[in-house]
Amino acid sequence: MNYYCYAHFAGKTPSIIRRSEIKMGIDDLVMLRGYAVFDFMRTYSGVPFRIDDYVERFESSATEMKLKMPLSRKKISSIVQELLYQNSIGQDSKTQNAGIRFLLTGRYLLDAHLPDIKPNLFILIEELPPYPKGWLTKGIKLMLHQHAREMAGVKTTNYITAIHLSEERKKHRAQDTLYHDGKQLLETTRNNFFVFKHNTLLTSSHHILKGITRKTVLELATKKFTVEVRPLELKELPSFTEAFVTGTTLGIIPVVKIDETILAKGKPGANTKELIRMFDECVRGDYFNKTK
Amino acid sequence: MNYYCYAHFAGKTPSIIRRSEIKMGIDDLVMLRGYAVFDFMRTYSGVPFRIDDYVERFESSATEMKLKMPLSRKKISSIVQELLYQNSIGQDSKTQNAGIRFLLTGRYLLDAHLPDIKPNLFILIEELPPYPKGWLTKGIKLMLHQHAREMAGVKTTNYITAIHLSEERKKHRAQDTLYHDGKQLLETTRNNFFVFKHNTLLTSSHHILKGITRKTVLELATKKFTVEVRPLELKELPSFTEAFVTGTTLGIIPVVKIDETILAKGKPGANTKELIRMFDECVRGDYFNKTK
Repeated sequence: MNYYCYAHFAGKTPSIIRRSEIKMGIDDLVMLRGYAVFDFMRTYSGVPFRIDDYVERFESSATEMKLKMPLSRKKISSIVQELLYQNSIGQDSKTQNAGIRFLLTGRYLLDAHLPDIKPNLFILIEELPPYPKGWLTKGIKLMLHQHAREMAGVKTTNYITAIHLSEERKKHRAQDTLYHDGKQLLETTRNNFFVFKHNTLLTSSHHILKGITRKTVLELATKKFTVEVRPLELKELPSFTEAFVTGTTLGIIPVVKIDETILAKGKPGANTKELIRMFDECVRGDYFNKTK
Repeated sequence: MNYYCYAHFAGKTPSIIRRSEIKMGIDDLVMLRGYAVFDFMRTYSGVPFRIDDYVERFESSATEMKLKMPLSRKKISSIVQELLYQNSIGQDSKTQNAGIRFLLTGRYLLDAHLPDIKPNLFILIEELPPYPKGWLTKGIKLMLHQHAREMAGVKTTNYITAIHLSEERKKHRAQDTLYHDGKQLLETTRNNFFVFKHNTLLTSSHHILKGITRKTVLELATKKFTVEVRPLELKELPSFTEAFVTGTTLGIIPVVKIDETILAKGKPGANTKELIRMFDECVRGDYFNKTK
């Protein structure tokens, strides 16, 4: 689908145009220097999920990168609503859901002196990438890899290592890569990482991107489990009784194997399944709350 | 100057068009995932300097990133010559020199599975960025920063940290940032780093991009100095009697201060000046050899 999207080139009049019509000059900093931040959110049942959290994080990434956001949070939210309407998202069961991508690119400056850059802003509507149904019901395998992302707390467009590893990941029959810094487990290429030690839920606290799905899961979990947000040591791996990843696209996906370590007898654990049930209720709840 | 450039979008007929006319779709991997490699070379007196070395390095970056180069080295070299001719580079003293940028971008694939990507190739002509004449005659100051570049040996477009530090660098009145990994001195944001300990020239060996100007300097220096290519320890800093950086745009630039450490009494050292003289002779030599 060639959705209507919002394109705001600095110094020009913003416009709502088809995605395929957005054209960037070769001199934007995103092209030549990889300088850009983005964010990615989604709808559930046609309604944007936790839009305030996502827009706030997008803004905070921009601030960290010293890029000036051209629009207010309120204005960004209203453009998202306008785009969903123009693209008929949520208007019938076939066009129920979509992904919403924010992109702020560095724009061209000869020497790229911060903070003088006036960036370009894009708000893009796209299909949610499909993933095999078996991931949710049977769980996935993670491959370990030593790597700490550059400026991990900021959602930059740098996914070089993630993509570079895709061939190796395929060879290992793994579905995602779990980064560690040699001592601590951090996050996967695009998702946060959680484990259970019996009825205690644990997740990494440092050098990660703080996911909105992660935040949601932490909020839900406190109702049922003991929760510890702290560094996860690599050497603790054998003591994990369950594991899962969280992300905007995937929601919660059970992890049944990490390299050669089999978790929960190779099946999604009972606590993880309970969290999936609660999360499912929550995202439907989000819909019902906002549309009634 | 809006130079003629070469644009080869995968699956389409390549064309030579004005730089401002090259337009990228928003879905290229370089836009959304920062997946691209590039290289940058220049002419001296209108003639491309060490083109075989640059094209070889560009090819090797592509191989490391599992991106398939659509053209042979020979073909790339002949396009460079064609572009220089069409842009009248080297045809009179005013249009003597230009920069030549190679860019290979990841192109769009939903899940970006390597090595199935067929990338886009661009060969761009541009003006050489000017720098203050005082840098060569008076030397520059470097600011230290702990950072080891991701995939340092590959020329990716990721300059996030370099640009991010530009404001701090200005505040410290430094002209470039020297990266170290906590133990060893590595390289600057865009240049290689050399030091003298009396008549011994030293430069880092690991976790750096191996510059072509670095290579040239090493070749020249063996005629006059003892040369050591080895890890440079951070704690050796007080023992350096001279320092300089090398890069395609800058050539050789003396370093007179690193954070608060003053080198060679704050003036370009005698050995550095000798290397600058030899390098200058060499690049003019390159011109005379190739044009007679």
